[in-house]
Amino acid sequence: MSAYHPLTEQEAIEIASTLDGFFPSGANLSSREIGDGNLNLVFHITDSVSGKSLIMKQALPYAKVVGESWPLTLDRARIESEKLLLEGELAPGLVPVVYKYDPELYLTIMEDLSDHVIMRQGLIGGTRYPKFADDISTFIARTLFFTSDLGMNQQEKKLQVKAFINPELCKITEDLIFDDPYTDSPNNSFDPAIRDAAEALWQNEQLHLEVAILRDKFLTNAQALLHGDLHTGSVFVTPESTKVIDPEFAYYGPIGFDIGAVIANLLLNFAGQEHWITDAGQRADFRQYLTDTVRDVWNLFDRKFRALWQEQGLDRLASSTPAFKDYYMQRLLQDTIGFAGCKIVRRIVGLSHVVDIDRIPDSAAKEKAQRLALAIGTSLILSNRKAQSIEEVIDIALSQANN
Amino acid sequence: MSAYHPLTEQEAIEIASTLDGFFPSGANLSSREIGDGNLNLVFHITDSVSGKSLIMKQALPYAKVVGESWPLTLDRARIESEKLLLEGELAPGLVPVVYKYDPELYLTIMEDLSDHVIMRQGLIGGTRYPKFADDISTFIARTLFFTSDLGMNQQEKKLQVKAFINPELCKITEDLIFDDPYTDSPNNSFDPAIRDAAEALWQNEQLHLEVAILRDKFLTNAQALLHGDLHTGSVFVTPESTKVIDPEFAYYGPIGFDIGAVIANLLLNFAGQEHWITDAGQRADFRQYLTDTVRDVWNLFDRKFRALWQEQGLDRLASSTPAFKDYYMQRLLQDTIGFAGCKIVRRIVGLSHVVDIDRIPDSAAKEKAQRLALAIGTSLILSNRKAQSIEEVIDIALSQANN
Repeated sequence: MSAYHPLTEQEAIEIASTLDGFFPSGANLSSREIGDGNLNLVFHITDSVSGKSLIMKQALPYAKVVGESWPLTLDRARIESEKLLLEGELAPGLVPVVYKYDPELYLTIMEDLSDHVIMRQGLIGGTRYPKFADDISTFIARTLFFTSDLGMNQQEKKLQVKAFINPELCKITEDLIFDDPYTDSPNNSFDPAIRDAAEALWQNEQLHLEVAILRDKFLTNAQALLHGDLHTGSVFVTPESTKVIDPEFAYYGPIGFDIGAVIANLLLNFAGQEHWITDAGQRADFRQYLTDTVRDVWNLFDRKFRALWQEQGLDRLASSTPAFKDYYMQRLLQDTIGFAGCKIVRRIVGLSHVVDIDRIPDSAAKEKAQRLALAIGTSLILSNRKAQSIEEVIDIALSQANN
Repeated sequence: MSAYHPLTEQEAIEIASTLDGFFPSGANLSSREIGDGNLNLVFHITDSVSGKSLIMKQALPYAKVVGESWPLTLDRARIESEKLLLEGELAPGLVPVVYKYDPELYLTIMEDLSDHVIMRQGLIGGTRYPKFADDISTFIARTLFFTSDLGMNQQEKKLQVKAFINPELCKITEDLIFDDPYTDSPNNSFDPAIRDAAEALWQNEQLHLEVAILRDKFLTNAQALLHGDLHTGSVFVTPESTKVIDPEFAYYGPIGFDIGAVIANLLLNFAGQEHWITDAGQRADFRQYLTDTVRDVWNLFDRKFRALWQEQGLDRLASSTPAFKDYYMQRLLQDTIGFAGCKIVRRIVGLSHVVDIDRIPDSAAKEKAQRLALAIGTSLILSNRKAQSIEEVIDIALSQANN
């Protein structure tokens, strides 16, 4: 018999109180459920005496976003906790510390990051994060290199592929990102005002070719252990700190998918700034900050990944063939650009949107932002296999914004 | 405690005699161990009364080819039996029937194919197999299509990837095919007469780039469930029948690797005919038969795979995007050519050779055959990413033979 059941707040407190040595004796614990409620319960447990706190995240056996009719394996909680622990080893300080994982309750007990904000919210408020590009590029370079055939034992990697087979969470991505937006799917959701733009996606055969190629890579290219959902809602930040959370979509996939997620969400915010910063000069400044960040994320990733390869590469042939390194990094850039485009498009016409754009109250500004995002996204997809430089991404964003 | 131990012939007979309903009562069984002894015991069990017979294949926990110092997981016997059963479902009549698998003894009991010959031996003897191209193209098209994301449920495919993770057997391929031949490895083995040609492989940076790209695909591209070792020594034939055996190298990899193996071994025989057919006209005829077979294998595969995709494709986007089909098939052709080249090269300078060439008694003819095979192999590797048609493979083989 399984001990699993969704915890009450009182049960969460009881479990937290027994965590070895965390809360001092005499602690007075209280709990608040702070999950967005889509897939998980998230309890914020605080001790009013010591001020100490922690987070308890428990997987729910269904996705509430579409009702209980979309069951989801609890095994994703194991995947998330194992991935978090691995990220903590490979990129120390850039993920919450895991205190404990309870496999029967599918419950991860971890560091409270309440002093951080969700990056998406911070960007909407016009805040800049000067450490972000350096931190996230370290995170992606190290977590991806050391789980790839370049940076880890290739036989152990295969066992890791096996441990992170994640069919149900991958299916969400396969459907919502790589299928629905390109056909008249009942899962799609978009403002009637941009129906013409959505229908244009359904008709564009060149776009379908590129998306089919990217989809195929997502389905078959077991390059490295991805975070799998690395948008700005999965990043907690302060100006001094970056913490990546929520790796429940982790699986072995194409490296560009993680990098593309970061870049896509910076560009979605870029599009949303149509509204959030009203002063034209300030808006242009912040957009330049965003495109500078896109450039920095790629360039720092490229530099760090190459350095790791140079210093710690384990594949003899790959490491001793300079032309292969250049070929490989160029393919990563091209994949990054293609996946970034797919991740932008789905946030405008697909099931799941981003508040950077969806919460724009003025309908004209919102439509303009949506069309801008779609134009950037489709341009990125259409240009991905020809791309030579990250500057092309910035050129596309700026030229579409100035259209 | 494990019941596993390598069987004696007497034990093999006892197990065979208990196989439900196979041998009639009063059977008089005898056993002969007929394995090549590298990796497995193979018992040929016959009943002198009824004339019925079967094969029992038991995995050994080491590879004898390099002594007992190279341990090998017995799990490959499970992989082999599961893959054989799956092949029997997907390509009925083209593999031996599996009567029983014993997971404790890592023992597969299956159909006796003594009325067939190993295709490599038949080709050396100048025999033509008019059904082979049709049969093998059916085998590869159906076993690969129905295990790919195009032809099976994509979530079930991920579980199948997991079931066929095969690190140790893959490592043999990774080392012996995609690494050793391109460096001065102690695993290499080649005639001193062609040392210059071997050293040229170690120095050729363009070749290293192409091999590194192909190696990367072998490591990361989980396209379909491969046979993994589909050379002409893994095919039993008569002029009327084709049976593919020995899928213990099965894993999820790039489709072109299986097709390339078939083509490589036809071309190795092509090179070996330098000696086996002494009459120039007859040799040219048989070589044309071999290149016709190369052409037929690819073209029939291409036609059958496309037909399956058209009629039974399960991926909406891939199936509704004609340009993607052409892109995909062209990539398969290019991969096929690249992998064929790698498989030829390793049989000349790497650890494991083929008797088509190694058993040529005349040293001058043998050297000529080796140099011809190497020239064909390296040309295929160098041209793979530009290739547009299978005719280019045939042009390479014929032009090198006429050099």
